[in-house]
Amino acid sequence: MSQFNNVTVPKKANIYFDGKVVSHTVLFPDGSKKTLGVMQAGEYEFSTGAAENMEILSGELEWQMKGDGAWTKVVGGEAFDVPANSVFLMKVAVVTDYCCSFLA
Amino acid sequence: MSQFNNVTVPKKANIYFDGKVVSHTVLFPDGSKKTLGVMQAGEYEFSTGAAENMEILSGELEWQMKGDGAWTKVVGGEAFDVPANSVFLMKVAVVTDYCCSFLA
Repeated sequence: MSQFNNVTVPKKANIYFDGKVVSHTVLFPDGSKKTLGVMQAGEYEFSTGAAENMEILSGELEWQMKGDGAWTKVVGGEAFDVPANSVFLMKVAVVTDYCCSFLA
Repeated sequence: MSQFNNVTVPKKANIYFDGKVVSHTVLFPDGSKKTLGVMQAGEYEFSTGAAENMEILSGELEWQMKGDGAWTKVVGGEAFDVPANSVFLMKVAVVTDYCCSFLA
């Protein structure tokens, strides 16, 4: 799916790490939520509330659950899942475009 | 208006200047289009096709029509209009969140 139809989009961006990670929220009629965002090259730590599916639209990064030690490379067209209530690390190699789905 | 309802949003971001300016497109039922974006601090030159209204949601910049010489400061809550088929310059002072409306 290349676009989302019949959605609600708050105007204000979500801005993290001094703008090195920015996203816009997309709200769906069924109550679910996604964010569409872009990450600059850099290293980031994020915490999840709900579980998340991180779909990489373009770019490249490595990620791991905090404390795991093993980095996993993910490129455009691939995705990874992060459990609820957890902390994960990302090493973003190049500007990376993503879609994050918040799972019920 | 703080959010847009019943809109279509392409997943892929619009990425300019190595990711220093990124936006997402919002398509409206009446056929009109806006982009919601974030600019890092820096200097940028953009060209318009259709005329544009640049609403600054947060942040600060100065802008001018290319060749004008006079910079105009714009901060969060303010907006400026750029004519169709023209070139404009922006000096973005801090991370700036914007909504660009493409006028018919």
